[in-house]
Amino acid sequence: MHIETETWTDLADAETELALVPVGSTEQHGPHAPLGTDTLNAEAVADAAADRYDGEVVVAPAIPVGVAEEHRAFTGTLWTSESTFRAYVRDVVDSLAAHGWDRVVLVNGHGGNIAALREVAGRIVRHDDAYAVPFTWFDEVGEQDIDMGHGGPMETALLQHANPETVHEDRLAEAASGGADRWGDWQGRVNLAFDSDEFTENGVVGDPRDGSADLGEQLLESATGSLVALLETVADRELPER
Amino acid sequence: MHIETETWTDLADAETELALVPVGSTEQHGPHAPLGTDTLNAEAVADAAADRYDGEVVVAPAIPVGVAEEHRAFTGTLWTSESTFRAYVRDVVDSLAAHGWDRVVLVNGHGGNIAALREVAGRIVRHDDAYAVPFTWFDEVGEQDIDMGHGGPMETALLQHANPETVHEDRLAEAASGGADRWGDWQGRVNLAFDSDEFTENGVVGDPRDGSADLGEQLLESATGSLVALLETVADRELPER
Amino acid sequence: MHIETETWTDLADAETELALVPVGSTEQHGPHAPLGTDTLNAEAVADAAADRYDGEVVVAPAIPVGVAEEHRAFTGTLWTSESTFRAYVRDVVDSLAAHGWDRVVLVNGHGGNIAALREVAGRIVRHDDAYAVPFTWFDEVGEQDIDMGHGGPMETALLQHANPETVHEDRLAEAASGGADRWGDWQGRVNLAFDSDEFTENGVVGDPRDGSADLGEQLLESATGSLVALLETVADRELPER
Amino acid sequence: MHIETETWTDLADAETELALVPVGSTEQHGPHAPLGTDTLNAEAVADAAADRYDGEVVVAPAIPVGVAEEHRAFTGTLWTSESTFRAYVRDVVDSLAAHGWDRVVLVNGHGGNIAALREVAGRIVRHDDAYAVPFTWFDEVGEQDIDMGHGGPMETALLQHANPETVHEDRLAEAASGGADRWGDWQGRVNLAFDSDEFTENGVVGDPRDGSADLGEQLLESATGSLVALLETVADRELPER
Amino acid sequence: MHIETETWTDLADAETELALVPVGSTEQHGPHAPLGTDTLNAEAVADAAADRYDGEVVVAPAIPVGVAEEHRAFTGTLWTSESTFRAYVRDVVDSLAAHGWDRVVLVNGHGGNIAALREVAGRIVRHDDAYAVPFTWFDEVGEQDIDMGHGGPMETALLQHANPETVHEDRLAEAASGGADRWGDWQGRVNLAFDSDEFTENGVVGDPRDGSADLGEQLLESATGSLVALLETVADRELPER
Amino acid sequence: MHIETETWTDLADAETELALVPVGSTEQHGPHAPLGTDTLNAEAVADAAADRYDGEVVVAPAIPVGVAEEHRAFTGTLWTSESTFRAYVRDVVDSLAAHGWDRVVLVNGHGGNIAALREVAGRIVRHDDAYAVPFTWFDEVGEQDIDMGHGGPMETALLQHANPETVHEDRLAEAASGGADRWGDWQGRVNLAFDSDEFTENGVVGDPRDGSADLGEQLLESATGSLVALLETVADRELPER
Repeated sequence: MHIETETWTDLADAETELALVPVGSTEQHGPHAPLGTDTLNAEAVADAAADRYDGEVVVAPAIPVGVAEEHRAFTGTLWTSESTFRAYVRDVVDSLAAHGWDRVVLVNGHGGNIAALREVAGRIVRHDDAYAVPFTWFDEVGEQDIDMGHGGPMETALLQHANPETVHEDRLAEAASGGADRWGDWQGRVNLAFDSDEFTENGVVGDPRDGSADLGEQLLESATGSLVALLETVADRELPER
Repeated sequence: MHIETETWTDLADAETELALVPVGSTEQHGPHAPLGTDTLNAEAVADAAADRYDGEVVVAPAIPVGVAEEHRAFTGTLWTSESTFRAYVRDVVDSLAAHGWDRVVLVNGHGGNIAALREVAGRIVRHDDAYAVPFTWFDEVGEQDIDMGHGGPMETALLQHANPETVHEDRLAEAASGGADRWGDWQGRVNLAFDSDEFTENGVVGDPRDGSADLGEQLLESATGSLVALLETVADRELPER
Repeated sequence: MHIETETWTDLADAETELALVPVGSTEQHGPHAPLGTDTLNAEAVADAAADRYDGEVVVAPAIPVGVAEEHRAFTGTLWTSESTFRAYVRDVVDSLAAHGWDRVVLVNGHGGNIAALREVAGRIVRHDDAYAVPFTWFDEVGEQDIDMGHGGPMETALLQHANPETVHEDRLAEAASGGADRWGDWQGRVNLAFDSDEFTENGVVGDPRDGSADLGEQLLESATGSLVALLETVADRELPER
Repeated sequence: MHIETETWTDLADAETELALVPVGSTEQHGPHAPLGTDTLNAEAVADAAADRYDGEVVVAPAIPVGVAEEHRAFTGTLWTSESTFRAYVRDVVDSLAAHGWDRVVLVNGHGGNIAALREVAGRIVRHDDAYAVPFTWFDEVGEQDIDMGHGGPMETALLQHANPETVHEDRLAEAASGGADRWGDWQGRVNLAFDSDEFTENGVVGDPRDGSADLGEQLLESATGSLVALLETVADRELPER
Repeated sequence: MHIETETWTDLADAETELALVPVGSTEQHGPHAPLGTDTLNAEAVADAAADRYDGEVVVAPAIPVGVAEEHRAFTGTLWTSESTFRAYVRDVVDSLAAHGWDRVVLVNGHGGNIAALREVAGRIVRHDDAYAVPFTWFDEVGEQDIDMGHGGPMETALLQHANPETVHEDRLAEAASGGADRWGDWQGRVNLAFDSDEFTENGVVGDPRDGSADLGEQLLESATGSLVALLETVADRELPER
Repeated sequence: MHIETETWTDLADAETELALVPVGSTEQHGPHAPLGTDTLNAEAVADAAADRYDGEVVVAPAIPVGVAEEHRAFTGTLWTSESTFRAYVRDVVDSLAAHGWDRVVLVNGHGGNIAALREVAGRIVRHDDAYAVPFTWFDEVGEQDIDMGHGGPMETALLQHANPETVHEDRLAEAASGGADRWGDWQGRVNLAFDSDEFTENGVVGDPRDGSADLGEQLLESATGSLVALLETVADRELPER
């Protein structure tokens, strides 16, 4: 059940403690993919899992702007400070919990959000009246031969499957040629770079031509399976008395 | 140009300083209208104005959760604190301005956001590198014989026109009968109530049966005209040197 | 009972849960009226109501500096950020409530404070151990043929009645001629201006010559009546168990 | 020139960079003295010094509520957190400085404010566009044979001179008998107590019968002299280029 | 040069822009290793690298308490909120930079600090006047056959080499038998646990008997080499004009 | 028992509610004494008292950076804002209390920390689940003929006794000749200076040649006695039910 398209009376009849919050970002994804990539992909996975899960799950509206200052050099990227982002997510989760939906999975589509989501989930679990845990879809697609990149094959593939009209297929070669092979500017495991324009000319990391709608379908299938399994686990999890 | 569906390279070609940020809310709107009413309506007006405006305007993704704690008694309502909401809006506007889109209209669909948006706009204008001003669509539809209410004729009408599938037409009578005539619990001009369940049984204020898709079309037309005119004014406004 | 002139032992004998907090501002009011206008007027109304109310009411010292950055262009205007102002008011109300005076009316004299007071009152009512509600005197004087303005007939009139020595009667014509007809720089219901010097040359809005001590007496009478009635309502209001 | 009783046009003619901000507190002062003691005394000293100083000085309205949680056990005491208090003072000083009054003395009447004022003055001096320094009147009265106490001879004496109607002369014996000899509950120089009701039964420290209007006059004379000398020094102080 | 053992005059003669800040934690490390493990190890690596680096490097005192709430169930663990930790680190780095040491490596010994350090480093680099980058020693020891664990072979080994007196060698078997094989309670790549007592009985993860002083020496050698190389890179890094 | 060198299992066996937190600073102490002076001295006193106290006391790691912006002009001085410092101390104390060590003495070595420690202790005592009180060692050494100064005889003496290798004995004359006689730039009891370089050329106040290892031993003895007595008092103190 999507909260924004339901009425409160119908939601009041929902028998569940489970909620999904898609968390996206509005940030450059190269010359071929839209700035809403992370939001679209997070929504695609959340929607598919809510559909497939054997039971009711409420789905909150996607959080559209996240921790993306690293892409500030590329036009259109929007961002909040990490503190603001955490506060926004926390308030959303706490208000979900106020209605009894206190087992929340944060379905994330953006690498830059991961640390902030883990931090705020910990704060919620330890200090508020909810259990929350982040799930980043591209980390949950099983073993893949391809790297995540940025605007690379995985993200592009999921768009090609779920939102094909948003991908400029005719720019994939350009995307690849102006992109980087690897995220970051590394010495050992230290990333010396803080902004993505330090290591990628057009914002891309990886070769989006390695993606395809078919791959996207497989990724969605795999991520959805992982998320459904997580929902089952979270539904059964023993929570402290409140 | 909608930021989330464009690529950064296409946005970099946009020749404009104007941006629209739809600002919604996820909150109860009675038994007949969806919780996303305010977001949907804000988007409808922003989209129509961006289309009609003679020039380019970038449109940010809608901010989906706002200042709605007053509806907390009704299932599904989500909210952030006013401080968090202002911080989120401010960060979004400041990142828009970082790309040169520093004349921003906050297209608002929710009465509860008005004061917070005015406050944050003042802070941005006085202290950041942007001009921002809030525009609340239902205040900009010319003289109407009907009150705004909540989930009432105006909001319902715009949904009936722009997102008709979201309205439960068969519940309008129920919505009206369980609703209140007036927002608030007033003594003089002091509203004694802070939560909406203090004065409305089912969350509705006003009679949504007074709405219609035709009325919605008129409202959209009128609000769009007002917003286009505002964009023209803001585009021409003299801003301080930065 | 005015807290600042009473001893704690006498206050401990007070049998009431009611408190008034006059909330003013230190800001320009044109060439004819003092910067303390809003504080003086708020105090006048609060004092009159405390006197007339049939029962004990404690009156806190007036909060002298509020949300007035909009007048920063005019010499002498003092202001705090909205956040600081809300924090200050909240702490004062919470300490009143600590002594059992947990039904609090914020008697406001400044338009710029209204939104911030409503916000902080909501926060107090929902999250602290008190009920608080703002009352802005010039909104509670019944139907008047004159607009509020700024340093205009209503504010000037109340000063002429309650603090006549503070008004420069010989500057009223100058005040009127350099003032504006209307607050703000409007397009529809959008105020494009954030600072008052954008639309008034000398800080005045309205013609203070339309005021008089007689009018001031009527305004005080009317506002006092409204505030006494509000105190009665607030005294009887059912509050949640704490 | 008192800001709250002047008009902005008259203040604009003032030729000075000096401002005084009386800083008080609303807190118990025993059975004989009013809760506004600290504010009244700070105002008395600030007013006398502004009068005597050979040049113009603007005087801000007194800040009425300060750092007084230590007296929370006694009815009527109002307080803000130290953070809120500092923010309020800082905003007031920064707005004074915006008008060119950027040499500011914080004329303090309450021991509990001292540390917070010193901290915020340091922050202002180092990081804002003003010089600010706190002056606590009872520390600046020369060598006295009597201790400061609380509601004791010094504070009572200044009230007896400057605001005699606020002192209950008939309760001085009661005040003394229920009071403490010394502020705090000490082991070495460590004060083990955080709240004043841990060591004084009626809130008094010291014997107010040792005060008198004559002593009050001497104290005012002495403190005023110190403050005038400080104003002269601050007026001549070399400040960094801004 | 260790800042805490040098005089300011000697530090003023240092010709370097490089600084190291050891960042530790005070948290349980099983029955065999001290709560200061992370601090001791971070200091060991920082000291060794400062010694070996061909040039001057200032070393700040270690930050002793970090992000360790996850170990709160085990006696003695100290922690700050992530926000407080970031603020503390940021202030330290900014004050280093004020002296010209504006190329800073945060030498970290605790996994729980990693995300917070990366976040604050990004904030410093983008918004303050310094370049800062975190270096976590156990991530920089080359390829190892052993997992990091917690109080496991790697951490124990470095203690056994650098601070052997702090390790209870006679408790290693007990440590291993009550410990866990793996950090966390995982489903896919989602860690369902937020506190370490959810998955380890005695706080240990991994078998500390796989450590040894010899291994510790190798680890220190390897980490030191990595850190020296990082210092060289950071020293040569082109920074933006300030 | 020093937390950082103990294991959690040994600490779990400790039978005490008492904890000491040494609080230092990293700041200039003239040409002869190290920047870690305040930390070293606080640790020396805390260690001695923990040893001598008849019962168990846990000792937290020293907080190494405090409120020292006043020394920013001298190379190497590190500081945090007062707010950050208080937050850090508060979190440390609250985590101590979480383990049952909820009677905490903050053993302070730096004058600049005193006010901030008192403030945060008050907040902890009134609002958290612990009793905390600051103890500044140089205020607790009985009557001394010498002033505290800064890098002066008292601080130097304690170093000469407890950490003699850190003192440059050959620079004492230079330290004295470039130092000031008195801390601050005073008019009456108002310190006009906010930074120490306004009144001391080399950072020293007082003549360190008046110190000696013997004096240091006496000071340590005296301060230790005071702290042990304080621990006894705090151990016996009646605390409110939680």
